[in-house]
Amino acid sequence: MQYAVIMAGGVGTRFWPNSRKSKPKQFLNLVGDRSMIQETVDRITPIIPIDRILVITNDSYVDLVQEQLPDMPVSNIIGEPVAKNTAPCVAIAAAILQKRDPEATMVVLPADHYISQPEKFRDILLSGIELAESGSNLVTIGITPHRPETGYGYIQMGKKTEHSKHPAHTVKTFAEKPDLKTAISFIESGDFLWNSGMFIWTAKTILDQFFTHLPAVYREVEAFEVQSDRDFDSAVLAFYHSVTSISIDYGIMEKAKTVHVLPGEFGWSDVGSWMAVYELGDKVEDGNVVNNDKTIFQDSQNCLVKMNSDKVVALVGLQGVAVVETDDSLLICKLNKAQDVKSVVDQLDGKKLSQYR
Amino acid sequence: MQYAVIMAGGVGTRFWPNSRKSKPKQFLNLVGDRSMIQETVDRITPIIPIDRILVITNDSYVDLVQEQLPDMPVSNIIGEPVAKNTAPCVAIAAAILQKRDPEATMVVLPADHYISQPEKFRDILLSGIELAESGSNLVTIGITPHRPETGYGYIQMGKKTEHSKHPAHTVKTFAEKPDLKTAISFIESGDFLWNSGMFIWTAKTILDQFFTHLPAVYREVEAFEVQSDRDFDSAVLAFYHSVTSISIDYGIMEKAKTVHVLPGEFGWSDVGSWMAVYELGDKVEDGNVVNNDKTIFQDSQNCLVKMNSDKVVALVGLQGVAVVETDDSLLICKLNKAQDVKSVVDQLDGKKLSQYR
Repeated sequence: MQYAVIMAGGVGTRFWPNSRKSKPKQFLNLVGDRSMIQETVDRITPIIPIDRILVITNDSYVDLVQEQLPDMPVSNIIGEPVAKNTAPCVAIAAAILQKRDPEATMVVLPADHYISQPEKFRDILLSGIELAESGSNLVTIGITPHRPETGYGYIQMGKKTEHSKHPAHTVKTFAEKPDLKTAISFIESGDFLWNSGMFIWTAKTILDQFFTHLPAVYREVEAFEVQSDRDFDSAVLAFYHSVTSISIDYGIMEKAKTVHVLPGEFGWSDVGSWMAVYELGDKVEDGNVVNNDKTIFQDSQNCLVKMNSDKVVALVGLQGVAVVETDDSLLICKLNKAQDVKSVVDQLDGKKLSQYR
Repeated sequence: MQYAVIMAGGVGTRFWPNSRKSKPKQFLNLVGDRSMIQETVDRITPIIPIDRILVITNDSYVDLVQEQLPDMPVSNIIGEPVAKNTAPCVAIAAAILQKRDPEATMVVLPADHYISQPEKFRDILLSGIELAESGSNLVTIGITPHRPETGYGYIQMGKKTEHSKHPAHTVKTFAEKPDLKTAISFIESGDFLWNSGMFIWTAKTILDQFFTHLPAVYREVEAFEVQSDRDFDSAVLAFYHSVTSISIDYGIMEKAKTVHVLPGEFGWSDVGSWMAVYELGDKVEDGNVVNNDKTIFQDSQNCLVKMNSDKVVALVGLQGVAVVETDDSLLICKLNKAQDVKSVVDQLDGKKLSQYR
């Protein structure tokens, strides 16, 4: 049967002041009415029921996941005592699922991406599942790129493989985040896709790959399998404390012999900064995005106003500025400098304001 | 004896959200720890005691004046039932003072100006008083201009008159707010001063001028003098309801035969907008002005942060922006568009937010 594994361990700082150490991006309503992780679950339950969805997150966010996903069985939420990148996360999920269902197919998804066309997305997933189940394939989903983005990794497509209504391609190379010149050449070549971090494979297939390419991780998985029957929680603890930290891309995908990629176009965004929240937001007059009806825009365009209170807000003579208010903080940020919000968070410690991180 | 008359009737909107219909500029702490009217009083009490200072304000602000100036005798606070510009205000003050003291000299001052060198200011005032008392002179104080400001009226100096340590000049002309080209020619000529709206004369002298140049106002003053003995408050009401609305500049100064002007340089500002508040504020790193120590400036220069709460504030990638918070409102304003705050206030009504005016 099909399962989904949602990776929700991120601790990003780019959405300060909304994102905090205690509540990172995936638990925030940045676009729409539900949090990113809620929307991620909502997006797949039409094809995979919630009791077949696992969430892997940091220990300290388990309560938050339970709160935001009250219908999810508690045993489906795995808390990582320490972050060890994506490969261990995939390995332990595969082991858990294989024990439940030796024929398990798993769809691995990040918890904090936005997709505007979920129907098309599910359609691709179904094709991917079919491909993964027909012959031990490793499948990843690549996003058809719209701009020479330097913030993403790329996947170069090889030859087309005959398959259902969504033709897949073999993967020629995985490319790290490129410089702008390289990114432009990628786009112009027409055979590069953005690496979305979404994967589909059977539990058996991926565990075989760990055996081959990451044997040290595989041994920890075996130890976990033995110990977890006696004491699941201790087994998880032991696994994470022993296992190497390594990404699934670097540890498996780049080494595996045949990887298939399904090109997808379904309004994807990794929602990387307040700029992305602005871009995805509904525009009112003058291209402004605003969450309260007491805002006055005087000679101000392309701004984002996200208030926590019902204050009257007036913007005068501003272009491309985000105003984000929380209970205890206020950010005013030029949208084209939204990446620098990270530096603000770094400065909080220096100013003895670490409780605001 | 010497008296001061502080004109505090303004209802300006340029300091929204701090200034409100119910609490305009003169009652706000915009620069320093005390309100503009408190600083105006503090500035003159070294030479004129508080019981010889009158405040003329709108009826609705009388309580606010009492609250902010608790040492001022209540009978020194005159509430105008309706604003009739500056000439009636000067006329009624002169009548009141002359009744108290037939030899009264009055210094007329706006309530909402800033002066960084009060000692030098008082020195000029004392010269002006001497000049006003020696021969029925009308005296005004002109500010030595530093830039071709188009927002002020100008006074053209005539010949120098021999007088004490601060030489006065006769006034050649009063000029309305000029266009930029004219303002530049004024500055280059070297014989123009800014019209500060500060005047010195004896009560007798100015009432004689009303008799000559504004006889209709003079008649109302006579009626007031008669009625005020019986019922002061009714007399004030009757005066303001009947009297013509006209400025002292237009009604008297521009028509009077000989007016003297004392050039002054004492760090004067009319504090016309948030830009002026920024300019007068103490600068921290990168030319920023800030009233709380929980503000982080990331790649942000020449900004003004004036918070009402103890929120952490972060500015990212901003130049020359004001952030002003009150209990119920938040203004984010490009400082070089600070004049447009007026338009925001105008829009409040249209958006059914008139309670925030």
